[in-house]
Amino acid sequence: MNLDLMRELSVPTDSKMVLLVLDGLGGLPMESGGQTELEAANTPNLDRLAATSDLGLSRPVAAGVSPGSGPGHLGLFGYNPLQFVVGRGVLSALGVGVELDKSDLAARINFASLDDSGKISDRRAGRIPSEKGEELVDLLNENMKLDGAEVSITHEKEYRAVVVFKGEGLSRSLADSDPQRVGLEPLPVNPTDDSSEAKKSAELANAFVEKANEILKDQHPANTVLLRGFGMHPALPSFDETYNLNAAAIASYPMYKGLARLAGMELLKEGEGIAGEFQTLKENWDDHDFFFVHVKPTDAAGEDGDFERKAKVIEEVDALIPDLLDLGPDALAITGDHATPARLKSHSWHGVPFLLNSPYTLPTAESFGERPCAGGVLGEFPAEEIMGLLMGHALKLNRYGA
Amino acid sequence: MNLDLMRELSVPTDSKMVLLVLDGLGGLPMESGGQTELEAANTPNLDRLAATSDLGLSRPVAAGVSPGSGPGHLGLFGYNPLQFVVGRGVLSALGVGVELDKSDLAARINFASLDDSGKISDRRAGRIPSEKGEELVDLLNENMKLDGAEVSITHEKEYRAVVVFKGEGLSRSLADSDPQRVGLEPLPVNPTDDSSEAKKSAELANAFVEKANEILKDQHPANTVLLRGFGMHPALPSFDETYNLNAAAIASYPMYKGLARLAGMELLKEGEGIAGEFQTLKENWDDHDFFFVHVKPTDAAGEDGDFERKAKVIEEVDALIPDLLDLGPDALAITGDHATPARLKSHSWHGVPFLLNSPYTLPTAESFGERPCAGGVLGEFPAEEIMGLLMGHALKLNRYGA
Repeated sequence: MNLDLMRELSVPTDSKMVLLVLDGLGGLPMESGGQTELEAANTPNLDRLAATSDLGLSRPVAAGVSPGSGPGHLGLFGYNPLQFVVGRGVLSALGVGVELDKSDLAARINFASLDDSGKISDRRAGRIPSEKGEELVDLLNENMKLDGAEVSITHEKEYRAVVVFKGEGLSRSLADSDPQRVGLEPLPVNPTDDSSEAKKSAELANAFVEKANEILKDQHPANTVLLRGFGMHPALPSFDETYNLNAAAIASYPMYKGLARLAGMELLKEGEGIAGEFQTLKENWDDHDFFFVHVKPTDAAGEDGDFERKAKVIEEVDALIPDLLDLGPDALAITGDHATPARLKSHSWHGVPFLLNSPYTLPTAESFGERPCAGGVLGEFPAEEIMGLLMGHALKLNRYGA
Repeated sequence: MNLDLMRELSVPTDSKMVLLVLDGLGGLPMESGGQTELEAANTPNLDRLAATSDLGLSRPVAAGVSPGSGPGHLGLFGYNPLQFVVGRGVLSALGVGVELDKSDLAARINFASLDDSGKISDRRAGRIPSEKGEELVDLLNENMKLDGAEVSITHEKEYRAVVVFKGEGLSRSLADSDPQRVGLEPLPVNPTDDSSEAKKSAELANAFVEKANEILKDQHPANTVLLRGFGMHPALPSFDETYNLNAAAIASYPMYKGLARLAGMELLKEGEGIAGEFQTLKENWDDHDFFFVHVKPTDAAGEDGDFERKAKVIEEVDALIPDLLDLGPDALAITGDHATPARLKSHSWHGVPFLLNSPYTLPTAESFGERPCAGGVLGEFPAEEIMGLLMGHALKLNRYGA
């Protein structure tokens, strides 16, 4: 999306938009000739909506490329996912609810095992249980002091944690210390460019590892830490400045809340389950002009290879569509951040069903599904165009040029 | 295609891909309301395959633009044909089987006629027969000596030949010496930028013409040479480094072998005719993970305006599809490098039918043809995305981002 163009043309209006994201919505037939999860699900409300909507398939990143959740959502929010990068460390921090400032440096931690010769004998420290992981994180936080930055570690799960360095002039241009193989010594964290910031950050990270080794020396199998995926806040232009929107996010998982916060959305306290999220939407309807609503269980079912469960989640959402329509959104987009076909049990590169409802559409089909969408007026198009389409349909963009 | 992204994400696996190119496959009805060559051909095997495939129309270069064979194939291989340029001189060199090093400069030669006043009286030297052309090429090779570069000339056909300069610091930034009209003097070869390389190369080319004029002075009507289409090896990132593939090419014409070699593919010795090419594929199946198979006669029939013959060639390929499928490719793409409608007797700008078969498709039609492809899940898309799609469907790309 051309963000400068959005900034130039967008105007605040009373119209309201909803971007409803069913995570991993796109699917595949389990067998050739069959239907996808969305096609197989019984979705009378979505089908009725499709019959008055523009349809298309949104492409998250590039042909053949399966996106992670970070690039998937950045695209939905209008940010080019190849231009704006969210490192794994940042996503992990967001995922455990850590708020990042723009100058913070984050990295993923794996607790790991060093043998007597200083080589890695287990990259996951024997998969220590989460209670042990928490205990070690507390130990590190209590004893870690570094010159040049404040350090805080947050436990994620089992052997995984996140470290955030708060300081001035930090850089994410750092290579992992994890050599990705056992039997090797951990790598020093090396800068990946020549800047003084990268050099300083590498020294900081290496001092952190050295200090952690001291603190953990009697904690075998978790007697060292490996650092991966250094990242910083991607400094996205906010929804406010880009689209002139007072945007809110409703999501039940920390990572998606974090991604929405990166874009400057206000986080709304979500109710329980999908119905609870829709209830939150209703309760806050008057206070915002853009709502990002994130539904997670479609993706989880796809990852599990559970075609039926994924279809059921879609049906659960379908049943809530009338309540959403009762609110009277001026423009409503329903799509996913990527496909997660049960057939593949993973994120995939396929086009994602996309529906845009407003009074200004050119409907082409009577149902919502991958193939009706492929034949829609939008065809296959880059996901980062979705925000522009929504803004247009909500009549929130001035004309370009005289 | 974003080649950096492919380099970052591609991983070697056991899966195997085939890119089957029917040169000039795309076609048109001879009369409005009729069928295209592919639609009219009796292709039960391709139709059955289409019914389990993703369909689309691939666009070689840009809207309305008819590609030559060079850009057409570069696009199929994932290289942006506007970014990577293969000069006519290079294509001609490849076409006669000359291997080019990255520092070589190549140009197309036309033998031509100069009158007594030094003006061109015939740009094709009275279309001298091939035997005469060969004799003149031998004469040039025996007597040509230049300072600063090794020179070798290879005969192409009739009045056409190719010259290759081997030296250091050469540039392709040179304008043609052919003024494109009779009654004018040949132009000096002028540099088209200010680099010292271009200046040096222009001097070299002009010295070559001067020396050729001496050698040919008694050979009227072929008493001079015109130089056109200066080009150098486009230095394509190889398939190996870009896609992590051990790629092989099966083609019966030198130009297509040459294009494949530019991309770093291994050339396999092809059998006789189309069936022979498929036999070669079978014999080498275990040794590579990517195969480019090039079928030429579709294009030749299109260029001749022979609708029936083009359809027959397609039927000949169709009959060999079961053998190809028996090999069990994990991802199979069938398309052309451009359209050559018999209606136009030339390459054209039209979208090219594209079929991609794998276990992970969303089929939309029961037959292979331009119009079923236009309605496919891929819609019209840039040909340079084909490699990304193949890589995705063969599960050879890591996820992008966390």
